[in-house]
Amino acid sequence: MPIPTIYWDDGIVKLIDQTKLPDELVYIECRTKEDIWKAIKNMQIRGAPAIGIAAGFGVVLGVQSIKGTTYTQFKKELDKIISYLLSVRPTAVNISWALNRMRRVVEENKGRDIRFLKELLLKEAMKILEEDKQICRRMASFGAQFIRSGQNILTHCNAGGLATSGYGTALGILFYAKERGRMFHVYVDETRPVLQGARLTMWELIQAGIECTLICDNMAASLMSQGKIDLVIVGGDRIARNGDTANKIGTYGLACLAHIHKIPFYVVAPRSSFDLNIPDGNSIPIEERDPEEVTCIKGIRIAPMGANVYNPSFDITSARFITAFITEYGIIKPPFSKNIHQKLIEKG
Amino acid sequence: MPIPTIYWDDGIVKLIDQTKLPDELVYIECRTKEDIWKAIKNMQIRGAPAIGIAAGFGVVLGVQSIKGTTYTQFKKELDKIISYLLSVRPTAVNISWALNRMRRVVEENKGRDIRFLKELLLKEAMKILEEDKQICRRMASFGAQFIRSGQNILTHCNAGGLATSGYGTALGILFYAKERGRMFHVYVDETRPVLQGARLTMWELIQAGIECTLICDNMAASLMSQGKIDLVIVGGDRIARNGDTANKIGTYGLACLAHIHKIPFYVVAPRSSFDLNIPDGNSIPIEERDPEEVTCIKGIRIAPMGANVYNPSFDITSARFITAFITEYGIIKPPFSKNIHQKLIEKG
Repeated sequence: MPIPTIYWDDGIVKLIDQTKLPDELVYIECRTKEDIWKAIKNMQIRGAPAIGIAAGFGVVLGVQSIKGTTYTQFKKELDKIISYLLSVRPTAVNISWALNRMRRVVEENKGRDIRFLKELLLKEAMKILEEDKQICRRMASFGAQFIRSGQNILTHCNAGGLATSGYGTALGILFYAKERGRMFHVYVDETRPVLQGARLTMWELIQAGIECTLICDNMAASLMSQGKIDLVIVGGDRIARNGDTANKIGTYGLACLAHIHKIPFYVVAPRSSFDLNIPDGNSIPIEERDPEEVTCIKGIRIAPMGANVYNPSFDITSARFITAFITEYGIIKPPFSKNIHQKLIEKG
Repeated sequence: MPIPTIYWDDGIVKLIDQTKLPDELVYIECRTKEDIWKAIKNMQIRGAPAIGIAAGFGVVLGVQSIKGTTYTQFKKELDKIISYLLSVRPTAVNISWALNRMRRVVEENKGRDIRFLKELLLKEAMKILEEDKQICRRMASFGAQFIRSGQNILTHCNAGGLATSGYGTALGILFYAKERGRMFHVYVDETRPVLQGARLTMWELIQAGIECTLICDNMAASLMSQGKIDLVIVGGDRIARNGDTANKIGTYGLACLAHIHKIPFYVVAPRSSFDLNIPDGNSIPIEERDPEEVTCIKGIRIAPMGANVYNPSFDITSARFITAFITEYGIIKPPFSKNIHQKLIEKG
């Protein structure tokens, strides 16, 4: 059983403080929607599916303090809570996807009493969490076909258990293949500036007994040119209708490099990371974060005082550089404009 | 006048301790060949031209303690000193180029007395240093034609004053263009693992009053796709006869990205960085350095204990991704196999 990234414990949301890893494995306790907002903002919890789950619980915590007794009052307060939680990180679509589910469950029970609605919201948040576990296993079972013994696999950032309820998207596939006895080796991009690869992915792979090697982000190209990478596998934060994919900064560059070196490039993401309302990557907002993430590492300054910094948290990978998407509905291959719709809407 | 990176002060070699920048500008004093060896190994002095200069002075310091009185004894000890200094960093060719000059000056004065040979060696080391200043200015005057007001320029690692006697290769061109009133903006790759971009290049550009922005290495691709990079300019540590170029790890990836985005990619390097004895990049040895450069930043651990690390200090940029070389003999365009030979041997 994987370690749970986030869980509900009798009125309190407990989540691993990922900023403390790999030095310490500690859970923090969230009792209010503000606690959840801050935990997401500070990346104590991160990863598209995981912050969707957290946002759902944020609503549950938020509605506890609603004083009104009518449905209308409750709905008005609920909408405020949802707007508040929506603002925390703009790029991943999973937060708005989860919040839409939370809103819908109330709207579908218009006029019911407040206590009942609060119970429904908790049930829905728990359902989002439980579904994520099954979705991760399903993605893993589809994706494992691409993983063979003897391969060298490159991954970026952390698309592991920590980015989900506990099993992972891209790393879930590796765990699944490992459970079936396949022996392979993973190169892990450290993933500046927040070092999710060095801190989180290396930690997860070492714990799972998967052979792995840490590299700086700028070393991947050299490995590819030496024939040392067989495939690249990453997660996704928001995928447009045409397949353009927002993911952790650095993903686009890797996809370009994989393309030039003719290496397959897979994106592993659940239905909840697809935003079928937007035509392409140009419509995805890119979050810029604090310059200190770049100029300081664990509080130690590494650049001159007063240095200008550009710190986008994500980039957009053009669909043309993606070999396939791995989802809980199966593998989606190009042409993406047609096949994403077909797989996720018509059959999904 | 630029701050000198390295100079001779009455029997002592003084050089900026670049590991202390940008926090402190301090010179260390080298009194023996071992001091020079350690300063190069620990990257207190780095950059292909600068370590060539340092190696020359390493010989001057080394021969001071030769006890023998015959030419044969002296030559034997000299060869030992040269072998010792050659071992310190294998990739850049400038060390062996400088040491060959030092050896030649003795061989051309076979049989002369020891005191005279020691004086000749000091003169030759000083000449290497002085020539570097002129070479940097000449490269800058040739390269400045590519720099126009309004451009956004990307550079990697530090090819600045600190990598030479004081003016720089790639950055020398930017200083030269700035001195002529051109207004442009430079994006600086932080250049993991040793962060020469964040620590040294940002420091040099800020001091020169050139507008600059620090990015993590994995952000360059996104800037390119947004049309925010007009050209890439880097230094070179060893260039083969066909134009394949060893330079700081990450250079090859940038060249691939520039190629995909149709952005010019220039390598700025003096004749001393060309190794015309080797046919292509496959013959260039790649130095691997201490894993702790990756797992620790300024002594702070950023990865789990026991993590495997791959830490090559350089990569090989295929000549086909290079737009032109900028040398003190002028611009070299493709086909490189023909034109490098023509420019550097026939005319040079």
